[in-house]
Amino acid sequence: MIHARPFDFPYDGNLDPGATALIVIDMQQDFLSTTGYFTRQGYDSSPLRAILPIVSKLIDACHIVGIRVIHTRQGYRADKADMTPYERWRRERSGLECADVLLRGTPGFEIAPEIDVWPEDIIIDKTCNGAFTYTDFEHVLRAQGITHLLFTGCTTDVCVHTTLREACDRNFQCLTISDACASGDQYAHEAALHMVTVENGVFGVLAEAADVLEGLVKLKKQRA
Amino acid sequence: MIHARPFDFPYDGNLDPGATALIVIDMQQDFLSTTGYFTRQGYDSSPLRAILPIVSKLIDACHIVGIRVIHTRQGYRADKADMTPYERWRRERSGLECADVLLRGTPGFEIAPEIDVWPEDIIIDKTCNGAFTYTDFEHVLRAQGITHLLFTGCTTDVCVHTTLREACDRNFQCLTISDACASGDQYAHEAALHMVTVENGVFGVLAEAADVLEGLVKLKKQRA
Amino acid sequence: MIHARPFDFPYDGNLDPGATALIVIDMQQDFLSTTGYFTRQGYDSSPLRAILPIVSKLIDACHIVGIRVIHTRQGYRADKADMTPYERWRRERSGLECADVLLRGTPGFEIAPEIDVWPEDIIIDKTCNGAFTYTDFEHVLRAQGITHLLFTGCTTDVCVHTTLREACDRNFQCLTISDACASGDQYAHEAALHMVTVENGVFGVLAEAADVLEGLVKLKKQRA
Amino acid sequence: MIHARPFDFPYDGNLDPGATALIVIDMQQDFLSTTGYFTRQGYDSSPLRAILPIVSKLIDACHIVGIRVIHTRQGYRADKADMTPYERWRRERSGLECADVLLRGTPGFEIAPEIDVWPEDIIIDKTCNGAFTYTDFEHVLRAQGITHLLFTGCTTDVCVHTTLREACDRNFQCLTISDACASGDQYAHEAALHMVTVENGVFGVLAEAADVLEGLVKLKKQRA
Repeated sequence: MIHARPFDFPYDGNLDPGATALIVIDMQQDFLSTTGYFTRQGYDSSPLRAILPIVSKLIDACHIVGIRVIHTRQGYRADKADMTPYERWRRERSGLECADVLLRGTPGFEIAPEIDVWPEDIIIDKTCNGAFTYTDFEHVLRAQGITHLLFTGCTTDVCVHTTLREACDRNFQCLTISDACASGDQYAHEAALHMVTVENGVFGVLAEAADVLEGLVKLKKQRA
Repeated sequence: MIHARPFDFPYDGNLDPGATALIVIDMQQDFLSTTGYFTRQGYDSSPLRAILPIVSKLIDACHIVGIRVIHTRQGYRADKADMTPYERWRRERSGLECADVLLRGTPGFEIAPEIDVWPEDIIIDKTCNGAFTYTDFEHVLRAQGITHLLFTGCTTDVCVHTTLREACDRNFQCLTISDACASGDQYAHEAALHMVTVENGVFGVLAEAADVLEGLVKLKKQRA
Repeated sequence: MIHARPFDFPYDGNLDPGATALIVIDMQQDFLSTTGYFTRQGYDSSPLRAILPIVSKLIDACHIVGIRVIHTRQGYRADKADMTPYERWRRERSGLECADVLLRGTPGFEIAPEIDVWPEDIIIDKTCNGAFTYTDFEHVLRAQGITHLLFTGCTTDVCVHTTLREACDRNFQCLTISDACASGDQYAHEAALHMVTVENGVFGVLAEAADVLEGLVKLKKQRA
Repeated sequence: MIHARPFDFPYDGNLDPGATALIVIDMQQDFLSTTGYFTRQGYDSSPLRAILPIVSKLIDACHIVGIRVIHTRQGYRADKADMTPYERWRRERSGLECADVLLRGTPGFEIAPEIDVWPEDIIIDKTCNGAFTYTDFEHVLRAQGITHLLFTGCTTDVCVHTTLREACDRNFQCLTISDACASGDQYAHEAALHMVTVENGVFGVLAEAADVLEGLVKLKKQRA
């Protein structure tokens, strides 16, 4: 069991690695690189890079204990068939009309090289902020028998939170790892973490990476 | 056009009442009444009651100008077939195991009497925080040719925000009316409003009710 | 295990009543009554009424063995908010513009009185042919831990088949009970049953009611 | 307008090329090649190859008149993360456990070389029979403002029909081109076409390619 707020995870004490996945949201060059979309838009990507060691440590621990690692990547289709006139207008307004950002097949779309993606890891590409919307994410989770999700990645207030909300509404058991998520906007990041715990865990529970790692070590010992 | 941040609404200047809906999220007795679920859980429902006059004014204006009003109501099915063991546990933990709260067919599920529901208004009942999930909300919006949504209701950080996020991911044009939304948690409320405008309007735009009403008056005159 | 084609059900021999549901599709007066929508449109409702005894027997057996019974009902919302201009046109073309058919709240929408609906049975109302689309059907199935579905009802080629196809695509284990389904169009009915078994069970398996009942009796004995 | 049964398409006489798409379902080597999955399973792929000239003619005509062409491809993810134990069992049972069939990244997954895929055509990859399920198909259609769909491809009774049913339930206007669809099972093919027209066009309308081509020629002249 993992020590968490407002209650330990999972609520029934039954942590099954085979039914659990570590979700690593959008740790892509567009968000993390100092030359990517996020920096170009004037956001500070340093809080995102700052979580790289913690996310990596969690990925390693999950690989050891047999928890599936699922990475998401955000970006429009290479053919832009999913881009509306409104999105084209928003990109122009942001000075991005000719920029290859948030676009599949471009360097910024790739997962940051600091993140160790194993061959057996699963990658979900998405256009939306929510990984469940117009993708095979739920299909994959259910096909794999995964019912428990540990959330990490960026940004806390946008893609992590939308996906977390979708997961809770679909009755997945969710834990957000506070110091393994980041945003360019510190106020939004902190508020997003706070929101998880209101109304007695309306979006599941919140834990620090250290508590998650301790829980995984205990699990490993039990199973050994 | 409605004055809004970070840009006016709609972005292309084309406000069509027939393609627009006012979304009134969960203005139910369970949240607003001083004897309802929300108060019983120790949350302050007074900020929710405080927006009643503004929401009512917006509803009246939308009725006049020909904008459809859609109310959502949150609650489990009367037969509780959509309630998981986890939700039962969470309710017990909150001392709600025998309480008829957030349950269809109970008094707390009803829309607050201060809200004037017209016969032609549409009501969407939902179990989830997001009104798009496991309901006919999207079906109704598309059947009605509605593409533009004005968000009001409660709570800003939970059901309003989840539904807003779902709407943006489905390419609806969204405007959140800041002083027509409320939460029992002022910090979460303000942060949720702030989140709308990050990344150049990641969840659409934000406006005050006065600006929306002014836009609707201008629209009425144009069409007269 | 239930004897079925092209292989027995479930494929792994593990029939768990708590994870199984009997799905009774649209056994409503609009389809079964001699004064309902179906008859009015010139279709023969007698094959639909003919399955009533078999469906009732299956319902009874499922109640005894602890398999949940889920009824679906097809019809537009009482406020017709989900009805498109095209559907209005189609109804007019069929001489149904003023008819209260396939409409919630009207007598034709009710389940036929010959069907014994127990208080613990679940009812899913839908506008679409597919029960998974714009409803809480999947939400309820997953909340109840239901993974195996036994299909009955009408019509075989339209609503039964659409829902069956949706269920298979969502990885539910599906068995269609051939003589507990019916259509006004015998050719379409037989072809729809045939389609289940092509490509080595592309839409699951097919069994007769007698084989299902025998399987349930064996299950009851095993558990006694 | 296109001559069709039980009524002409579209019902309101307004055929807008920009709002219409030609859907080409699963014209892949796995189904069409004489060494592919379909043939290996003992099905006759010659009816599928027989429609290649008609489908090609329709694709050409749509390109000329400005109708988007959308191809779907069926197959599991290259990492098989979407494959359930049941599907593995079914493949083993069919002697396909080591076969690279219906799998992304393998030769059989590719669209048949006789089909001319233009750079501006859209390709949707799917695991399910229904192209709307767990994909971005609906997202792309709505982003492109597409509301009218012309169906071609294979197999008529499985993937064409499931996708057609999903499209109708989502209120797309649908026309199935009878001689541009095919199945290895002639009885199922014919019955699937018949099913479209029951209940006064329950799954839209049915037309022959010649009538569709004639309608497109008229449209081209009108617009010239």
